[in-house]
Amino acid sequence: MSRSVLVSGGCGFIGSHLVDRLLLRADLGKLVVVDNLWTGVQQNIEHINDPRLSLEVQDAESFASHQRFDEIMHLASPASPSWYMREPVRTIKANIGGALNLLTLLKPGGRFCFTSTSEVYGDPLVSPQPESYRGSVDCIGPRSSYDESKRCTEALLFESQRISGLDVRVARLFNTYGPRTRIDDGRAISNFISQALTTGILTVYGDGLQSRSWGYVEDIVDGLERFFWRDNISYRGTLNIGNDCEVSVLEIANFVCSLVPGSRVEHHPPAPQDPTNRCPDLTLARRVLPDWGAKVSYQEGVRLTLEWFREQVSEWRSANMESSAVPAMRPVSGA
Amino acid sequence: MSRSVLVSGGCGFIGSHLVDRLLLRADLGKLVVVDNLWTGVQQNIEHINDPRLSLEVQDAESFASHQRFDEIMHLASPASPSWYMREPVRTIKANIGGALNLLTLLKPGGRFCFTSTSEVYGDPLVSPQPESYRGSVDCIGPRSSYDESKRCTEALLFESQRISGLDVRVARLFNTYGPRTRIDDGRAISNFISQALTTGILTVYGDGLQSRSWGYVEDIVDGLERFFWRDNISYRGTLNIGNDCEVSVLEIANFVCSLVPGSRVEHHPPAPQDPTNRCPDLTLARRVLPDWGAKVSYQEGVRLTLEWFREQVSEWRSANMESSAVPAMRPVSGA
Repeated sequence: MSRSVLVSGGCGFIGSHLVDRLLLRADLGKLVVVDNLWTGVQQNIEHINDPRLSLEVQDAESFASHQRFDEIMHLASPASPSWYMREPVRTIKANIGGALNLLTLLKPGGRFCFTSTSEVYGDPLVSPQPESYRGSVDCIGPRSSYDESKRCTEALLFESQRISGLDVRVARLFNTYGPRTRIDDGRAISNFISQALTTGILTVYGDGLQSRSWGYVEDIVDGLERFFWRDNISYRGTLNIGNDCEVSVLEIANFVCSLVPGSRVEHHPPAPQDPTNRCPDLTLARRVLPDWGAKVSYQEGVRLTLEWFREQVSEWRSANMESSAVPAMRPVSGA
Repeated sequence: MSRSVLVSGGCGFIGSHLVDRLLLRADLGKLVVVDNLWTGVQQNIEHINDPRLSLEVQDAESFASHQRFDEIMHLASPASPSWYMREPVRTIKANIGGALNLLTLLKPGGRFCFTSTSEVYGDPLVSPQPESYRGSVDCIGPRSSYDESKRCTEALLFESQRISGLDVRVARLFNTYGPRTRIDDGRAISNFISQALTTGILTVYGDGLQSRSWGYVEDIVDGLERFFWRDNISYRGTLNIGNDCEVSVLEIANFVCSLVPGSRVEHHPPAPQDPTNRCPDLTLARRVLPDWGAKVSYQEGVRLTLEWFREQVSEWRSANMESSAVPAMRPVSGA
């Protein structure tokens, strides 16, 4: 049976990698990407030449279609604080408005997949964070548009599961990095790399001892692929997907400096409500997705990402000969 | 200057009391109530004969108007678990969709007031709960449609305040009871009273030792009135409004039994995720609203509510002579 799939946010960083994986499916008949190109870029899927794929440049919350889909994967949302903090209302609309609208495009019995976030745990008082942890989110704080709209979209989906038996897959993604991150994304690894390649000054917020579990995008998308369609899964709750090896922001910055001669770290005041730690408890993930785990070390992942960013910066420079300033330099805030 | 005000949910229990107070304002030129009569009833405002008042029977999330308002008070939402747990998607739409839509009807520089809830604290690990407490909400639990959509609406409003200077007033209401609660509302006090007056059997979920702070509606609406328009307030955060005198569910049930001869308590299994306690920390409320506080004891409040319910039941019976069963008997769950 040929399957029709919709991916919102399919031109984004993680979305475009997921699109690559989806097109490897023999049972996929049609893949519609809905993306308003707010943080996503069309270039992320330009390498694809597949008649099954089409792009609709529209908001997830207002996309209309006569088609109905077997599977919908809702990834449309900025994920970087420096992006969602600038447009919080739009962020809330993308997440909840997007889910409410896309649910109307799902065939009866279809599957709805959603990329939630470790931000539902806020600044956690428990580490590592199991799925059952209720979180410590300031619901009126500067990160609340993202955190609360992800939480509320989870509520919407699981309540729909409870009331009408909706087939729901909700992954809580932890920090993810890798090729196709925007140069001006603003989160730590991509920021350090683009800064190293341009100004040479890596901005670390606070002392840099706040830790993160950095997941390389291929590892993360492996997990998503298995959870969303490849494995036969009976588990119906939320699932943490991330790397559980914690590394401090400063260690990453120093490692990037070691790869780019002449670059150095500069400390800036802490970002507002930047969590002090974030690490997935993967007990459940290991049970639901046997043998899955993050396999790429941060050293390897950062090298691969650096390589990709070098190409981007060099392309950008040759396209903009008059200036060597790349757009990564806007103020950013936290990982 | 004559002010135009919109109240969503103005036919509801608290909404209709707020409408009464608004109509006492000399500066009020026009009052539009938007209510889809899902849990509100038109009867709650039928006693009003004031040319300034008009009712639009519509959803808050889709109400359209060419008018723009000086003040919007967004109360549209079911508040009883037995109601919102039956229609969680609609509950989410009413809260967030309602706020997003109504914001477009606010005049530049206008004020947006929202009745949030103590449910944002979930099953609290801290008691009493100050506004700064981040809460313990299961964002995929059976109460999540209400809890999370209230949290996310708070996020929306405070992010709008941060980004565009929106004048926001957000009250976190604790348990409220009194005249104009639906007979089939399903929350503890009204339920006990309507049960006492009909079947004579008061259903207490669990051991009944879970405590609540019961606020009589006139006291609560006093607080809202002062916070939303009467006092000149510079404080711009969320504000707890409730009674901080904790009384157990069982004590209320026993008191109702003492007023209605022949009635008795029957214990049922606990309601899902019924919080074990809920009590406002009113430190901030006392500073922001000097001399405000709950003045009506539960004994007095329950008597007043019982009196009102007696009239309702008797009216209902004379209108439905063929049966003495009033609609309070549907399964309910928790306070």
